[in-house]
Amino acid sequence: MKTSLLAFALLGACAGAAHAQGSVQIYGNFDAGIVKRSGQDVSIGKRAANTLGFRGAEDLGNGFKALFHLEMRYEPDTGSSEPGPDGNRRELFQGQSRVGLQGGFGTLRIGRGPTPFHETIGNFEPFHAIPTAGGFYTDLSVAGYRAQPLDPVGTAGDRWSNAVWYNSPIVNGFQLNTALATKENNGGVAIVGRGSAGAPQYPAGADASANPFSVSATYSNGPAALMAGYERNAIESAVWSVGASVQATPELKLMGTFTRLDEDHTRPFNTDTSAWVLGANYTLGPGTFLVGYGQKDTDGLEKVRQLSLGYEYSLSKRTYLYIDASRKKGLPSNPATVNQYDIGIHHTF
Amino acid sequence: MKTSLLAFALLGACAGAAHAQGSVQIYGNFDAGIVKRSGQDVSIGKRAANTLGFRGAEDLGNGFKALFHLEMRYEPDTGSSEPGPDGNRRELFQGQSRVGLQGGFGTLRIGRGPTPFHETIGNFEPFHAIPTAGGFYTDLSVAGYRAQPLDPVGTAGDRWSNAVWYNSPIVNGFQLNTALATKENNGGVAIVGRGSAGAPQYPAGADASANPFSVSATYSNGPAALMAGYERNAIESAVWSVGASVQATPELKLMGTFTRLDEDHTRPFNTDTSAWVLGANYTLGPGTFLVGYGQKDTDGLEKVRQLSLGYEYSLSKRTYLYIDASRKKGLPSNPATVNQYDIGIHHTF
Amino acid sequence: MKTSLLAFALLGACAGAAHAQGSVQIYGNFDAGIVKRSGQDVSIGKRAANTLGFRGAEDLGNGFKALFHLEMRYEPDTGSSEPGPDGNRRELFQGQSRVGLQGGFGTLRIGRGPTPFHETIGNFEPFHAIPTAGGFYTDLSVAGYRAQPLDPVGTAGDRWSNAVWYNSPIVNGFQLNTALATKENNGGVAIVGRGSAGAPQYPAGADASANPFSVSATYSNGPAALMAGYERNAIESAVWSVGASVQATPELKLMGTFTRLDEDHTRPFNTDTSAWVLGANYTLGPGTFLVGYGQKDTDGLEKVRQLSLGYEYSLSKRTYLYIDASRKKGLPSNPATVNQYDIGIHHTF
Repeated sequence: MKTSLLAFALLGACAGAAHAQGSVQIYGNFDAGIVKRSGQDVSIGKRAANTLGFRGAEDLGNGFKALFHLEMRYEPDTGSSEPGPDGNRRELFQGQSRVGLQGGFGTLRIGRGPTPFHETIGNFEPFHAIPTAGGFYTDLSVAGYRAQPLDPVGTAGDRWSNAVWYNSPIVNGFQLNTALATKENNGGVAIVGRGSAGAPQYPAGADASANPFSVSATYSNGPAALMAGYERNAIESAVWSVGASVQATPELKLMGTFTRLDEDHTRPFNTDTSAWVLGANYTLGPGTFLVGYGQKDTDGLEKVRQLSLGYEYSLSKRTYLYIDASRKKGLPSNPATVNQYDIGIHHTF
Repeated sequence: MKTSLLAFALLGACAGAAHAQGSVQIYGNFDAGIVKRSGQDVSIGKRAANTLGFRGAEDLGNGFKALFHLEMRYEPDTGSSEPGPDGNRRELFQGQSRVGLQGGFGTLRIGRGPTPFHETIGNFEPFHAIPTAGGFYTDLSVAGYRAQPLDPVGTAGDRWSNAVWYNSPIVNGFQLNTALATKENNGGVAIVGRGSAGAPQYPAGADASANPFSVSATYSNGPAALMAGYERNAIESAVWSVGASVQATPELKLMGTFTRLDEDHTRPFNTDTSAWVLGANYTLGPGTFLVGYGQKDTDGLEKVRQLSLGYEYSLSKRTYLYIDASRKKGLPSNPATVNQYDIGIHHTF
Repeated sequence: MKTSLLAFALLGACAGAAHAQGSVQIYGNFDAGIVKRSGQDVSIGKRAANTLGFRGAEDLGNGFKALFHLEMRYEPDTGSSEPGPDGNRRELFQGQSRVGLQGGFGTLRIGRGPTPFHETIGNFEPFHAIPTAGGFYTDLSVAGYRAQPLDPVGTAGDRWSNAVWYNSPIVNGFQLNTALATKENNGGVAIVGRGSAGAPQYPAGADASANPFSVSATYSNGPAALMAGYERNAIESAVWSVGASVQATPELKLMGTFTRLDEDHTRPFNTDTSAWVLGANYTLGPGTFLVGYGQKDTDGLEKVRQLSLGYEYSLSKRTYLYIDASRKKGLPSNPATVNQYDIGIHHTF
């Protein structure tokens, strides 16, 4: 039968009809709103990352599963594939592309996705890890650390390509999460390292000088949760972080993180950065108030300070409206104060 | 629980299995055929735009819904994402990316999509708004107007990025449709305006000089329908149109539009264009004959005249075969007569 | 009703809810692993092509169907759309984009997809046509032939854009498969032909000098299958091939091909290439051993020799683990021996 093209095509179509509906789920979210940022026109934009994903989980028997995720990212205002800060389009499945196995041993996956450090710390951030400039996740929570400095300019700061992930099962509230990346490069630009008199320490398209790896541990016990994480990237910048959260009352959750970044492998000066963020979520009927304050202090540079306020009003379990206001002062690259306001809708599907 | 990566991943996968099949629909169409155009080789091409879309509607209770659409466009002959006339690829969700709410008040959406003027006038065009060069929708129906002159060369002529839409409910057969865009630009090229001695009136990457807006009104009563529309784009070209259609007999529908374009904000000469199109659709058994004739007259330039004939033969409610012949004379940029013939298949899914 | 935008949008959303789940299936596969190749770092990569596809089949009654396929290709390690060997991204629906009709007469399709020659010979290759460098499908099985030399550098070697396909029904085990492409070009680079003193025989962006066509015939009878194929591309290189396979025992399948490529339309020297591949698949419990050996001999150039060994261990009907080792000697462009090893997971959805 395999030698028949027609039979092959027909079988394919029929098999699809029989199983595809059950084996692949479409998921994602659509977040769009109106944004006003100091020094910029009013624009249509977003607050959260926008995802259109495809995933499946196959039961292999004996408690084992095969899993995959393929996640596109897009911009709501133009319909484009998500670009980086420089306007370059990112990869089609920028969100993640991972496949693997799950069982009593935990979960083992391969491909591209968020690092364990980033995936964990997002749960201790008062704006639930949304990458808006009005939140803390992309800067103060991680002390300005970026996961993939040897990738092309504009790729996401919290993800790895070419890596293997392992998540342990949860034992007595404790879980370990790890990832190890290859030394492959993806064609990034040169990085001028410390002590170099002219040539860059990492020339354009360089391999990693050491395998990047990331590890995080979480512990949860009733209303309290703790985390600790450590990550080292392809140019041997290292970041560690500790965090805690507590559901103080049914309405009030408090959380905080302290993070330290060490860049002395590549920077001659200002090699250490410390940052902390304190936050709270307060639920009142269908609404939730979000508040956070944080500081980032790089040795010898002006402190960065950020205060953010948000409100989310649920229309359903899958849809809410939001409004935010935030102020950030003392950015090293642009010392002016930046205020950001947004209002919009977030729909999960 | 939120602090557990594994639990998070598992919950995600399970939630997907439970609701995703019900919340996202895949829709679109596949139109492919053989095309012969004066001065060109026989080629594989299309007659309608080709769409692969994802959409969902969530019932919020009390008559309210949350809605979204994400629409890719593609070329059937090469499998590429839809390029513009210059060969540049357009955005991934070129068709539309909109999210919003619907209820007794009407529909409110945000993102990217067709303008109300364009969405309305397409219903009064004898080739049901397909953007083939053999139809009228992209040129004569709209008097050559383009919605987004400050976007990059090659973007669609009937859509806006960065806009908000409102459609009223239908009251006594009457409906109002509006959209308002921001002044954001998307990196288009310079436009040399009138009176400028050397510098362009809109330099490359310029903002809109006024907020683009679009409004259309429709009225339907039994077999008759009327429309009126007005739209102003980012360089303040303004277009208005009136149209009517009548289902004269169960087999025969007649329709017509008159459109006027005013470009005196940017053009020193030939600032006004008028165009009209008359058309009919005649149904005979499983087939429908399409016929249209139109003229476009820009002050001081040669008239453009177009005659188009088409036939669609339904194999089902979702699939038809088509054959068309059209002739267009007096194009300003190329005064030769262009004949176009195509034959193909259109499948909706 | 058609004149109402709102009604239109609502109808669309509802129609989608009613039929879309039944009319479009998502299908594909995710293959990822760890690869080590002579002279390269260990990397995350793949063994098979990775596909995310959308397809539908509509019953038209009387034994007729309308069919379509839209197939993306992606890289598991970075989440990018599949690039060619030069790193350029290929088309969004690189795998195929075809629509057509099927009935008692056979199957007629239009668009982009694999050629009949390539689709057929893949069934006689011991690594079931996966395009890994460790298998034979992309080089020795087809004697180094490429289907689309006038397309841009980096496009797939076994597919045509702008073509029409016809597959006959299977009659007494016999089936005929054909495709005919237009002379359209897709913007490829110049090809310096034989005898040309300076100018290329095919300048950049050239049309085909003859219509490319491909034909294959297959015959299956119980455990035995035979094939014969012939294909001519846009620059009139011609390839023919014969192949056979036999299921010798329930566990053991043997197969072989002989292929001859004639490039004398464009090459002044080394115009003829012959290649043969012998292979076997042996099933033992949940595992299958794959083994193949082949030679490619281009007149006047060193022979290429390849030996490949593989093992696939099924976790389910849809998921298997694999491990391979292969050695290839005497590549004309790089005469060193190349060893390749990989280990990974393949999941079909």
